[in-house]
Amino acid sequence: MPDALKMPEPELIDHAGLDSAVYLRIYLLGLKIFIPILFLTWAVLVPVNWTNDWLEVLKANYSDIDKLSISNIPQGSHRFYAHVVMEYAVTFWTCYALKREYETVAKMRLHFLQSEKRRPDQFSVLVKNVPPDADESVSEAVEHFFLVNHPDHYLTHQVVVNANKLSKLVKEKKSKQNWLVYYENKYERNQSKRPMMKTGFLGLFGEKVDAIEYHITEIERLSNEIAEEKENVKNNPKAIMPAAFVSFKTRWGAAVCAQTQQARNPTLWLTEWAPEPRDVYWQNLAIPYVSLTVRRLLMSVAFFFLTFFFIIPVAFVQSLANIEGIEKRASFLKPLIEVKPIKAFIQGFLPGIALKIFLILLPTILMIMSKFEGLLSISRLERRSASRYYLFNFFNVFLASVVTGTVLEQLDTFLKQSLNKLPEIIGVAIPMKATFFITYIMVDGWSGTAGEILRLKPLIIYHLKNFFLVKTEKDREEAMDPGSIGFNTGEPQIQLYFLIGLIYAVVTPLLTPFILVFFALAYVVYRHQIINVYNQEYESSAAFWPDVHGRIVAALIISQLLLMGLLGTKEAKSSTPFLLALPILTLGFHSYCKGRFEPAFVRYPLQEAMMKDTLERAREPNLNLKGYLENAYVPPIFKEAESDSEDDDDDEISDKKWAKDNVLVATKRQSRKNTPVPSKMSNGSSPNLHEIQEKDKP
Amino acid sequence: MPDALKMPEPELIDHAGLDSAVYLRIYLLGLKIFIPILFLTWAVLVPVNWTNDWLEVLKANYSDIDKLSISNIPQGSHRFYAHVVMEYAVTFWTCYALKREYETVAKMRLHFLQSEKRRPDQFSVLVKNVPPDADESVSEAVEHFFLVNHPDHYLTHQVVVNANKLSKLVKEKKSKQNWLVYYENKYERNQSKRPMMKTGFLGLFGEKVDAIEYHITEIERLSNEIAEEKENVKNNPKAIMPAAFVSFKTRWGAAVCAQTQQARNPTLWLTEWAPEPRDVYWQNLAIPYVSLTVRRLLMSVAFFFLTFFFIIPVAFVQSLANIEGIEKRASFLKPLIEVKPIKAFIQGFLPGIALKIFLILLPTILMIMSKFEGLLSISRLERRSASRYYLFNFFNVFLASVVTGTVLEQLDTFLKQSLNKLPEIIGVAIPMKATFFITYIMVDGWSGTAGEILRLKPLIIYHLKNFFLVKTEKDREEAMDPGSIGFNTGEPQIQLYFLIGLIYAVVTPLLTPFILVFFALAYVVYRHQIINVYNQEYESSAAFWPDVHGRIVAALIISQLLLMGLLGTKEAKSSTPFLLALPILTLGFHSYCKGRFEPAFVRYPLQEAMMKDTLERAREPNLNLKGYLENAYVPPIFKEAESDSEDDDDDEISDKKWAKDNVLVATKRQSRKNTPVPSKMSNGSSPNLHEIQEKDKP
Repeated sequence: MPDALKMPEPELIDHAGLDSAVYLRIYLLGLKIFIPILFLTWAVLVPVNWTNDWLEVLKANYSDIDKLSISNIPQGSHRFYAHVVMEYAVTFWTCYALKREYETVAKMRLHFLQSEKRRPDQFSVLVKNVPPDADESVSEAVEHFFLVNHPDHYLTHQVVVNANKLSKLVKEKKSKQNWLVYYENKYERNQSKRPMMKTGFLGLFGEKVDAIEYHITEIERLSNEIAEEKENVKNNPKAIMPAAFVSFKTRWGAAVCAQTQQARNPTLWLTEWAPEPRDVYWQNLAIPYVSLTVRRLLMSVAFFFLTFFFIIPVAFVQSLANIEGIEKRASFLKPLIEVKPIKAFIQGFLPGIALKIFLILLPTILMIMSKFEGLLSISRLERRSASRYYLFNFFNVFLASVVTGTVLEQLDTFLKQSLNKLPEIIGVAIPMKATFFITYIMVDGWSGTAGEILRLKPLIIYHLKNFFLVKTEKDREEAMDPGSIGFNTGEPQIQLYFLIGLIYAVVTPLLTPFILVFFALAYVVYRHQIINVYNQEYESSAAFWPDVHGRIVAALIISQLLLMGLLGTKEAKSSTPFLLALPILTLGFHSYCKGRFEPAFVRYPLQEAMMKDTLERAREPNLNLKGYLENAYVPPIFKEAESDSEDDDDDEISDKKWAKDNVLVATKRQSRKNTPVPSKMSNGSSPNLHEIQEKDKP
Repeated sequence: MPDALKMPEPELIDHAGLDSAVYLRIYLLGLKIFIPILFLTWAVLVPVNWTNDWLEVLKANYSDIDKLSISNIPQGSHRFYAHVVMEYAVTFWTCYALKREYETVAKMRLHFLQSEKRRPDQFSVLVKNVPPDADESVSEAVEHFFLVNHPDHYLTHQVVVNANKLSKLVKEKKSKQNWLVYYENKYERNQSKRPMMKTGFLGLFGEKVDAIEYHITEIERLSNEIAEEKENVKNNPKAIMPAAFVSFKTRWGAAVCAQTQQARNPTLWLTEWAPEPRDVYWQNLAIPYVSLTVRRLLMSVAFFFLTFFFIIPVAFVQSLANIEGIEKRASFLKPLIEVKPIKAFIQGFLPGIALKIFLILLPTILMIMSKFEGLLSISRLERRSASRYYLFNFFNVFLASVVTGTVLEQLDTFLKQSLNKLPEIIGVAIPMKATFFITYIMVDGWSGTAGEILRLKPLIIYHLKNFFLVKTEKDREEAMDPGSIGFNTGEPQIQLYFLIGLIYAVVTPLLTPFILVFFALAYVVYRHQIINVYNQEYESSAAFWPDVHGRIVAALIISQLLLMGLLGTKEAKSSTPFLLALPILTLGFHSYCKGRFEPAFVRYPLQEAMMKDTLERAREPNLNLKGYLENAYVPPIFKEAESDSEDDDDDEISDKKWAKDNVLVATKRQSRKNTPVPSKMSNGSSPNLHEIQEKDKP
C-alpha cells in the first residue's frame, strides 16, 4: 500500500488511465475543500456556539454535540451573523477550490489528449441516421456523401452491422466449450465411466446421452452456424445498420465533421465523435432518431416513478414475505419454519430483505434504463446512471433521513406545503440529525471503505460463484476478475458526503472531521485499489468532470437554501436576508465555469488538431493511415468469432499477445478483460503498426 | 388594401423580406389553430354546458356567457369528461398545426438561404476575444491564426474598431448642418436681418453671434476633428478591438469555422456566424467574455425586479403627483389648478399617468437592457426583448387580471400557498374572468389593430415632432419615417392572444370567435402595413421562429395546468387524472420539435454550403471574391463620415443611388432609411459587383 501512495500522478495516468487518476482527485478535492473549512469553522463557530446556554434554558434533552451546534444559539441572537459570514467563507472557498480543480482537470485532459499516441478515435466520427436510398447501399451512400461534402478530408469508413445474433451464437458456443472442458476433466479423473447428461431443460429432462460427444457435436453445429451468420451479416442488407464510423485523413477533418451539421434535415447524417473502440456500446448503434426521443421521455418518467414510488412494490413484496404468508402458501415448510431460531431469523430478516435486494439491484436497474435510452458509449451509460443514482440517493437517503417518513409521504407533505416553506421544514430538521449523519458516515463511509480494502463483498460473491457456478479453471478466473472501479456507483456516494459536509459545515462544525476522515481513508484505499486491483475498461479522458463539478455546486446551493430556511425559523430577521445573494452568486459562478471550462470536455479545438496533424506529417510523412484505420471499428464479436473459428484453444496465447501489445496501459496485472481491438490499435507507435500491417499482408 | 391581400407569398418575400412574411404567418397560424377548435368546441361543449342549470341552482348572479361556460356544470358531474377529451383534441390539433408550421417555416428559411444571392455574411465569421499579443497587432494575430488553422479556406479579415467617438462627432456635425440649413432658409425669407443666436446652453445664454457664420465655422471645425479621429481610429492600437470579421474563400470554410471551437482556451477566439452587415450592433462588439457573464446575470436579476417590483417606483411617483402635492410644491400653479374642469381632468388623469408612461417606455427599457447585455445583432436584441416583454405581460397583464391585485401581492400569496395549489387558485378564477377578457380583446386587440391601420399613434407623434422639433425639410422627412415593424413589441402581444385563446378554448368556448376575429383582422391589417408602410431594417431569415413556437407550446402547457386546477376544485376526481399525461406529452412534443427543426435556425449545414460553393465555382470561375468581401464589414459610420467629407450635400443623390442599387428588397417606397452598405452589397448579382469593382479602381 505505501507503494501505491508514492506513485506520482503522471505514472498513475500511464498505469491506470486518466479516468482513474481524475477519479482519485475527487477525494483529494474533498480534502482540499474541507480542511480549511474545518480550521475556519472550529476557530470561529465552536466558541460562538459553545458560549451560550440556550439548550439549558430550553431544558431540552441535548448532547455535547448539540451544544457545539447552531441549536445552542438563542432565538433572534446577533450571533447568527457569524454563521452568515461563515457561509460566505465556505461558499467562496468551495468555489475557489472548484474552479482551480476544474482548471487543473481541463489542463490534464487537454495534455492527455495532446500527448497521447495516435488513436483511431482521433480520426473517426460516428455517423448515425444515414437515410435509406433505393439505389445505393448504406456503405455507398456514406462514401458518396462524404466524398462530396468533405472532399479533401474523407479517408474511409466502416458500416455498423447488427451482430446481436452472432454475439448470441458465440456466447452459446463458449458456454458449450466450457461444459465440454468440464466433462473432459470429469472423465479424466474417473476414466471408468463416460459422463452422461440429459438434453432437456436444465439437464433434468429428456434423453440421456454421452455428454462429451454431445457437446462436441453441438460445438461443431454452432461453429457452422456462426460462420453462416457471419456471411449473412456481411452480405444481408437488412443486417447493415444506417450508421457508420467514418475516418478522415486528418484530425482536423474529423474535428470539423464531428462539430458541424451535415445535412439540411438535422435528424439525418448526425455526426459525433467516435468513442474509443473499447468504449463503444455496440448494441445501441442502430436506434432511429424518433425512437430516441420517445425512449428518453419514457425513461425520465420511469425514473420519476422509480424515485418516488419504488416503495410501493417493495412494500407489496414485504407484505407477502411474512411468516404467515409463507406458511399459508408453502405448508410443507411449516415444520421447518416453526423451529425457534429459524423463525426468529426469518422474522428479523425478511421484512428488510426486499428493500435490501432492491437497493443492491438499483445500480443495475439504472444501468439497464440508460442502456434502453440508447446511449452509445459505456462511459456515457455510466455517467447517466451516476446522475440518476445521485438523485435517487438525494431523495431516498438524504431527504428521507432528514424528514423522517417515506419519500411518498414527503412528496405529499411538500406538495401541500408552501413553496418557500420547503427550506424551512428541512432546515429545521438539519441540526437535529447531526448525530444520525455522524453514525451514517462511520457505518457507511468508514467501514464501507475498510470493507473495500478487504474486498469483502467480492470475496463473498466469489465464493458463492465458486460454489454454485464454477466448473472449470476458466470459470474460476472469470469469477476472480475484479472488474472496473464502477463510476456509476462510486461517484454518487462521494457526492452524498460532499452534500452532508457542506450542509453541516456551518450548522454543526463537529461533523466536518468525520467527513475529512472519510475522504482521507477513501483516497488511500481507492488509490491502492486502482493501482493494484481494478482493471481499466475504457478511457474517456475525464469526460465526467463537468458532472462532478455540477453536483458539488448543487450541494453548495442546497446548503445555502437550507441555512436560509433554518435561520428563518430562528427569528434572525436581520441576518437572514444577507444570505439571499449567495445562491445567485453561486449560480453565476456555475455558468461562468460552464462557459469557461466545459467546452474542453465536449469539443475538440481545431488549433490542437492542426498542431498534431502538422507534427505527425513532419515526423512520419509516409504513414499508411488507411491501413491503420481500416479495421479499427470492427465489432469485437467479429474478432472473437474469428479467433474462435481459427483456433479454439489459443485464447491464452492471444491474451498474452494482447498484454504485450498493450502499451497504452502498461499494467502489472495479467489482465484478461481488455478488449483486443483497442489494445492492438491504441499502442499506435509506428514499429507495432508496421508489425500489424505486415501481419495483414498475405 | 385588396392588392396587399392578393400578393402571393414569394413576391411578398421578395418585397419585404422573409422576416416579415414569416411574421405574418404567426397570425395565419392563429387562424389555423383556432378555426377547427371553434367548430369542435361549439359542436361539443356548448350543448354540454348549456343543458345544465347549476348556475340557477346556485342562484348565482350570472350572464348568458356563463351559462355557456364550464361554470354551469354541477360539481362532480361526469360531463367533465367531455372537457378532458376536448382538451386532448385541442392539444393534439395545436401540436399538429405547430409541427406543420415549424416544418414549413424551416423549409422556407432553407429555401431562402439557398436561393439567396451572394451575401457577405455567407462567407464571414465574427471572431471575438482575440488574445492580446505583445509582438503582433490584432490584425496580424488574426491573420496568422487563421492562416495556420484554416490554411485552405482563409481569405481576408477586417478588424473591429471602436468608432463610438467618431460616431458622436458625425452626429454633431449633422445636427449643425441641419441648423445651418434652417438659418439659411430663415435668412432667405427675410433678407433684411442676419439671423443671430447665442452660443451658450440651449441658445439662452452666452455671446450673441451671427448664426450662419457661426455654424459654418463649427462645421469646418467638426470636419477637421472627424478627419483627425478617423486617422486616430485607424492607427491607434487602443481603438482597435480584439474582434474581427474573418472572411473565407468558400461558404463551406465559413460554416466550418462558425460551428467549431478554435483554441484550447474556449473563451478565446470565439467564433460565430457574422450577422448581416446592416444587422450588426456595432457598439457591443468589444465586450470581453467575463464581463458578458456578469452582464447577463445582472440583467436577469434586474428583469426579475422589474417584473415583480416595478409597481413600487410607479406608486411612489403617483403618490407625489396628486393635486395637493403639486399645489404644495408649485404654489404659483394654484390658481390655475383650482379651475374646476382642469382640476377634474388632473384628478382623473394623474393617478394613472405614471403607470401609463412606464408601460409606454417599457419596450424601450427592455431594449436598453438587452443592449447592455452585450448582444451583437439587432435581430437578437429584438428577440431577447420580445421574450422578456412576453414574460412581463404574462405576469403583469394576464395573471394580474386573473388574480386581482398587484403582482407584488400575488407573489406574496403564491409564496405562502402550496405548490400544487397554484393552478387551482388561478384555474378557479379563469371562468369568472371570461367577460373581462372578451372586453380586453375588443379594446386592446380589435381597436388597437384598427388604430394601426389609421396609424393614429405615429400621426400624433408626427404632429408633435412637427410642432416642436422640425426645422428643415430633412427633419420632416425623418419624422415621417415609419420605421420597421418592431418584432419586440408586436410578437409578445400576439402571444398573449394565443395564451388567452388556448386557456379559454375549453373553459368558455364563447371567447374563441373574438380571438379569431382579432387574428383575421390583424392579419389583413399587418399584411397591408408590411407591404405599404414599414421598412425592413434587417433580414434574419426568420430566426425568431423557435421563440414563437416555444411560447405557443408554453401557453398550451399553462392552459392544461389551469384546466387541471379548475377541475380539481369541481370534485371531478374521476376525470382530472386523465389530464396528467397532457403536459408530459406536450413537453415530449416540444423536445422532439427542438431536435428536429431548431438546428435549421441556428446552424448551417455543410451539404448546403458545399452545394452553393460548387454551383458558384461552375458559374463564375473568375470571381474576385476578395474584392467583394474586403469592405463588407466597414462600420456604416465610416461610410457616412466619408461621404460627408467628400461632399456635404449629395445625401439626396446617394440615397437615390442606394435605392436603385437595392435589388434585394425592391420596394415601391422611397426608403431613406436603409443602411447604404448592405444595399450595395446585398444585391450581389455579378453585373452590379463588377460595377462596384470598377468604381473602386482608381
